Amino acid sequence: MATKQIQIVKYKGASHWEASDLLAVEEPLEIRLEYGPLVKRKSQNISITMRTPGADEDLAIGFLFTEGIVRQAADLFSVRVWGENMVMVSLQPDFDFDFKKLERHFYTSSSCGVCGKASLDALKTVATHSLSCQKNDWDISPELIYALPDTLRKAQETFDSTGGLHACAIFDQQGNMLGLREDVGRHNALDKLIGHYLQQNLIPLDDHILVLSGRASFELVQKAAMAGIRFICAVGAPSSLAVETAASFGITLLGFLREGRFNKYT
Amino acid sequence: MATKQIQIVKYKGASHWEASDLLAVEEPLEIRLEYGPLVKRKSQNISITMRTPGADEDLAIGFLFTEGIVRQAADLFSVRVWGENMVMVSLQPDFDFDFKKLERHFYTSSSCGVCGKASLDALKTVATHSLSCQKNDWDISPELIYALPDTLRKAQETFDSTGGLHACAIFDQQGNMLGLREDVGRHNALDKLIGHYLQQNLIPLDDHILVLSGRASFELVQKAAMAGIRFICAVGAPSSLAVETAASFGITLLGFLREGRFNKYT
Repeated sequence: MATKQIQIVKYKGASHWEASDLLAVEEPLEIRLEYGPLVKRKSQNISITMRTPGADEDLAIGFLFTEGIVRQAADLFSVRVWGENMVMVSLQPDFDFDFKKLERHFYTSSSCGVCGKASLDALKTVATHSLSCQKNDWDISPELIYALPDTLRKAQETFDSTGGLHACAIFDQQGNMLGLREDVGRHNALDKLIGHYLQQNLIPLDDHILVLSGRASFELVQKAAMAGIRFICAVGAPSSLAVETAASFGITLLGFLREGRFNKYT
Repeated sequence: MATKQIQIVKYKGASHWEASDLLAVEEPLEIRLEYGPLVKRKSQNISITMRTPGADEDLAIGFLFTEGIVRQAADLFSVRVWGENMVMVSLQPDFDFDFKKLERHFYTSSSCGVCGKASLDALKTVATHSLSCQKNDWDISPELIYALPDTLRKAQETFDSTGGLHACAIFDQQGNMLGLREDVGRHNALDKLIGHYLQQNLIPLDDHILVLSGRASFELVQKAAMAGIRFICAVGAPSSLAVETAASFGITLLGFLREGRFNKYT
C-alpha cells in the first residue's frame, strides 16, 4: 500500500522534536472510457477521483459498475493503466453506449456523495438500478459479528502506520475475510473491492458480509446495493439516508460495531 | 442541527434490547445557478451534494466560491431556498458568467474529492486560483493549540448525540471559537463555514485558525487555501497531497491534534 515518508516536528506538552512519519498517499486518478466500433473508437475522460494509488483497474471498473455504466465483466474489452494516474477502460465495440446520455448523467457534479446525478430524480433512478435483494434469511451470531472489526484491523497494516486510510472488507458467513481494500476515500475502497469481484464474475455478493471501517453514508449503501450485498456492518455511525436506503433494499445494516456491541438499524 | 429519531436494536455481549437512537440526517441538496441579463435569465442545476440540512445558503455560496465560480459576495444577486432540498443562487445580471466554460469545468465528476475537474491540469489551475499566502509569521503557543479540539468538541452538541457528524471551526489567535459548522460531509461543513464568512466580506481568513474534527485531505486544504486560511489543525491524519498542497500555499498544517500532542507537517 502506498505510503510516503516525510520529516515532521512532533509536539507533546512543552517539548518538541523532529521525527519521520508515514503519510497515506493521495493522488488524483483520471478514468477514461474508450467506446464505439473498433474502426472509429472514441475516448472520453469521465471521472477524476482522489485516491490512494494501487488497484487502480479495480477502482475504475468498480466505479463504472456502481455508477450503472457497465453491468458485467463481459462489457469490458480491456483495462489499461497509463502512467501513474490514469486508467483507460475500453468497452466492447458492440456495447451499446450512449455518451450523450452519460453527459446528461454526469453534467452536474458535487464535492462528494452522489456526484454526477443530474437531479434528485436521477438519484432515485440510479438507486433502483440495484439487484432486487431477497429477504434476509441468514442467522449470524452476534459473537461472529463482534469479531469482524478486529480481523479487519489486524489486516490493515497500512492503517497502523499512517492512521489515514479507510478500509472495507468482504467476509463470508463463517467470519472469514475474503477481500480487503483501503483508500483515503471510503467510496474508493468500496469501488476497488466491488471492481475486483466484478472481474471474477462473483457479483452479486449476496452471501457475504461487508464491513466498513468508518461511518455508513448513503453513497456506500447505494454502492453495496448495486453489488447485491445484503449485510453491512459499519464501525461508525450511519446517516439517516443510509438507513432509509438500506431498508428500501432489504439490506441489514449494523452500526457502531466495536468493543463487543453493535446497533441494528434495519 | 438536523437529527432523526428511530427505533433500533442494541446488541451487547449475549443480550439485546430495543432502544431509540438519533441519526444525523443526510439528504441531497441541489444547487441551481441563475445567471444572465434580467430580461433573459437562465438557470441551471450545477451540483447535487449529500449534506446535513441547515445553513444551505452558506453551503451553496461556499461551494461556488471554493470551486472558483464566484469571487466575492458582490457577485451574488440573491440566494433563495426552494423547498427542502434546493438552493437557487442568482448571480448579478452583469456578472460575466460563461456556462459553456462551467460545463467543461464540470463535465466530469467523481465519487469524491476534486469532482468536476476535467483533467489533472485543470486541478492544478483550480488550486492556483488561491490567494497568495504570505509567510506565516505568527507565534501561537502549543498550549493554546492543544486546547482547540476540546473547545470544538464541547460545541459539537449534535456530535455527542449521533456520533455521525464532521465539524470544522474558525478560531482567532487567542483560541476563541468564532464559528462552527457540522455536516455528514467534511467538505460541506467547510463550505458552509466559508460561505458564511464570504457573505460577511470577511475573506481572506488569514488571521484565523481552522480546526478540522477529522482527517485532512487535499480537498479540504484546497478549500481552505481558496479562503486564504494559513493555519490548519486536524484532529486526524493528513494525506500526502494535503501536506504537499499546504506546503505549496505556505499553509501551516498540524495533524493528530489530540490529548496534548500534535504533529507539525508544514
